[in-house]
Amino acid sequence: MRILLVGASGTLGSAVHAALRDRHEVVTASRTGADHSVDITDVASIDALYRAVGRVDAVVSTAGAVPFRPLTELTHEDFRAGTADKLLGQVELVRRGVAAVTPGGSFTLVSGVLAHDPIRTGAVASLVNGALDAFVVAAAIELPEGRRINAVSPTVLTESVERYGDFFPGFEPVPARRAALAYVKSVEGAQTGQVYRVG
Amino acid sequence: MRILLVGASGTLGSAVHAALRDRHEVVTASRTGADHSVDITDVASIDALYRAVGRVDAVVSTAGAVPFRPLTELTHEDFRAGTADKLLGQVELVRRGVAAVTPGGSFTLVSGVLAHDPIRTGAVASLVNGALDAFVVAAAIELPEGRRINAVSPTVLTESVERYGDFFPGFEPVPARRAALAYVKSVEGAQTGQVYRVG
Ligand SMILES: NC(=O)c1ccc[n+]([C@@H]2O[C@H](COP(=O)([O-])OP(=O)(O)OC[C@H]3O[C@@H](n4cnc5c(N)ncnc54)[C@H](OP(=O)(O)O)[C@@H]3O)[C@@H](O)[C@H]2O)c1
Ligand SMILES: NC(=O)c1ccc[n+]([C@@H]2O[C@H](COP(=O)([O-])OP(=O)(O)OC[C@H]3O[C@@H](n4cnc5c(N)ncnc54)[C@H](OP(=O)(O)O)[C@@H]3O)[C@@H](O)[C@H]2O)c1
Repeated sequence: MRILLVGASGTLGSAVHAALRDRHEVVTASRTGADHSVDITDVASIDALYRAVGRVDAVVSTAGAVPFRPLTELTHEDFRAGTADKLLGQVELVRRGVAAVTPGGSFTLVSGVLAHDPIRTGAVASLVNGALDAFVVAAAIELPEGRRINAVSPTVLTESVERYGDFFPGFEPVPARRAALAYVKSVEGAQTGQVYRVG
Repeated sequence: MRILLVGASGTLGSAVHAALRDRHEVVTASRTGADHSVDITDVASIDALYRAVGRVDAVVSTAGAVPFRPLTELTHEDFRAGTADKLLGQVELVRRGVAAVTPGGSFTLVSGVLAHDPIRTGAVASLVNGALDAFVVAAAIELPEGRRINAVSPTVLTESVERYGDFFPGFEPVPARRAALAYVKSVEGAQTGQVYRVG
């Protein structure tokens, strides 16, 4: 398959890249240093990406940032920024990518454990991940011509424990390669409207 | 208790009003025709509301609109508008209301069945409701001094079947007064971080 991977340079993205590149042609995109440059918070930049990349069989996202801060210190701008980036950025990757994906092809987005298992400072992440999980379930019944959509919802990654681990007391980390397996299931399998919890 | 009810004039709001007003002092707010005027999409207007209303024991919301349209016809502006109104409008009602609510008091937001049981044209509603369900679970662990937060997630209301029923094939409607009971449980009970599914 020909696969567009947005966020290939990241912690999760490099594991997904490694899991897919031997059997597929993987085209990468992110803000800097990838095959194509895209900022998912900018809809014109997403349109330009699809024009440049052409037809693909799958769009895979491991991108998207959200601010972490105690609930009472979060600002309206933090919520607006988190929804504009990880949430609506990935939604627009889907909406604007429908024509670029072959019928029967798939979208795979990233959400995360905080949708259902919250931590202090994580209210924006919880909101965004819960929205993404619900969105893939809804979009799956409306995507035309058998196109599919799933989300991968990992717990904290082993590779990120050194940076974030203190915020996740008692969470059992999973290696990024286990989360990458869920991407393989989404891309090469036939399921749609699923949220794959990893961890 | 002294309760601020945002959206009292609506289909759901009037049932919630009826369920609370005999035992409590209910102060109402919405854009027009209530005790206080507020537009939850405007953060300055929310701040002005709390200044005008003063201390309350509970904030109850039955407000918030989302656009309905087929997935492939929805625009970026539809997603932006839905998140700014029902989603971030209610989030800001909580964030900006913390100091106005007495310790141990509660917030109750409205989400809806589409978070987990999608319909055609409902992708924005699903996304917004899923975000709200995850937000209350997350906010519950961070609200200071025992303040509580829950969401009420009704299926389609009997009172709305004439207007929306065709979009909900096979959904069993519930009377608004049953959804109102979940609000009573949230306000007068002691639970927090719950999503009350009604239907
Ligand atoms: N790490 C974890 O433990 C963990 C656990 C659960 C869920 N997640 C979720 O997984 C996703 C990736 O996490 P990560 O730790 O791998 O992050 P990361 O290492 O910071 O990588 C993020 C990747 O996305 C790209 N990117 C960021 N913003 C972008 C934008 N606006 N437009 C296009 N590309 C963008 C980055 O490349 P450029 O900088 O070049 O744009 C990079 O390739 C996040 O949504 C995160 O919430 C992570
Ligand atoms: N009806 C159903 O079957 C059903 C089922 C599940 C969930 N829900 C959810 O329940 C909520 C209420 O639904 P409904 O059918 O009762 O709606 P509705 O009859 O249209 O009532 C909406 C209420 O909210 C107020 N409102 C609307 N936008 C506002 C804003 N920006 N700022 C402040 N107040 C605002 C309205 O008053 P003003 O016009 O004066 O502002 C009105 O009091 C919605 O979020 C809906 O998604 C409804």
